[in-house]
Amino acid sequence: MQHTIAVIVENRAGVLTRVAGLFSRRGYNIKSLAVGETDVPGVSRMTIVVNGDQKVIEQVSKQLYKLIDVIKVTDLTEEEYVERELIMLKVFVNSETRTEIIQTVDIFRARIVDMGRETFIIECTGDQGKVAALEQALKPYGIKEIVRTGKIALSRGTKEQKQ
Amino acid sequence: MQHTIAVIVENRAGVLTRVAGLFSRRGYNIKSLAVGETDVPGVSRMTIVVNGDQKVIEQVSKQLYKLIDVIKVTDLTEEEYVERELIMLKVFVNSETRTEIIQTVDIFRARIVDMGRETFIIECTGDQGKVAALEQALKPYGIKEIVRTGKIALSRGTKEQKQ
Repeated sequence: MQHTIAVIVENRAGVLTRVAGLFSRRGYNIKSLAVGETDVPGVSRMTIVVNGDQKVIEQVSKQLYKLIDVIKVTDLTEEEYVERELIMLKVFVNSETRTEIIQTVDIFRARIVDMGRETFIIECTGDQGKVAALEQALKPYGIKEIVRTGKIALSRGTKEQKQ
Repeated sequence: MQHTIAVIVENRAGVLTRVAGLFSRRGYNIKSLAVGETDVPGVSRMTIVVNGDQKVIEQVSKQLYKLIDVIKVTDLTEEEYVERELIMLKVFVNSETRTEIIQTVDIFRARIVDMGRETFIIECTGDQGKVAALEQALKPYGIKEIVRTGKIALSRGTKEQKQ
């Protein structure tokens, strides 16, 4: 089963290696990872997506707490949450495909953020399903490059993850 | 100086630990990191933001290439590129602040993606400056939680980073 885990950490050198190491030592491959600063200076929030059964994820969470840099661990999978990721795609464009591509971008409420001689850079946010659908829709035109942020998530309502 | 580095890797268990370890062993703290799949199955792209002088970044790049999982390393700082990050903020809202918050969201071309009894979840994409400005604008209302993806980047025009 896929789990989305929020880990609040003190952003010290090596914290990423220590957290990622806990997963890799058990042979778990992190499917997606996003790390960014929070509103508290020196405190970062990692969003980790990993496949694993409930019991093992619980064990890993307990071990995460043993790291001194770790402030809080929450398995968001257990609650209602909003998930989003950001994707940027560089797509080939020519005079014949231009209108169609612009229409596709509109349908997905995506945005064209750069225009080269023969490429567009398109950005889009959404859940995994939407982002994958956009990628499929643009594939026929030729995708030159893709970059994704990995998933971030916040629980719905007023429950909170941070300290 | 701040560097934005794109690393294309084979997504094997432990690759993240090995890549992050190369930075942390030198005492470099990764400022932001985003990892997501590309259009090639089994191949992921990491976007790493790190502070360091040119020479040391070049050394780290060379060492990255020695890892068998690493396919390609590009320091985007050397070229023209489009950068974006995604932020979600959970902000307190009441009948008095509601209109003002909705106006702020419109000004930043952000979106309200969830509405709780006393909170909004707002998503916004942009470069670091824009995202920081939105955070500042919403701070007076009380921010309950923030999650960020870390920066992703694509070079402008037709040069490419992937293999």
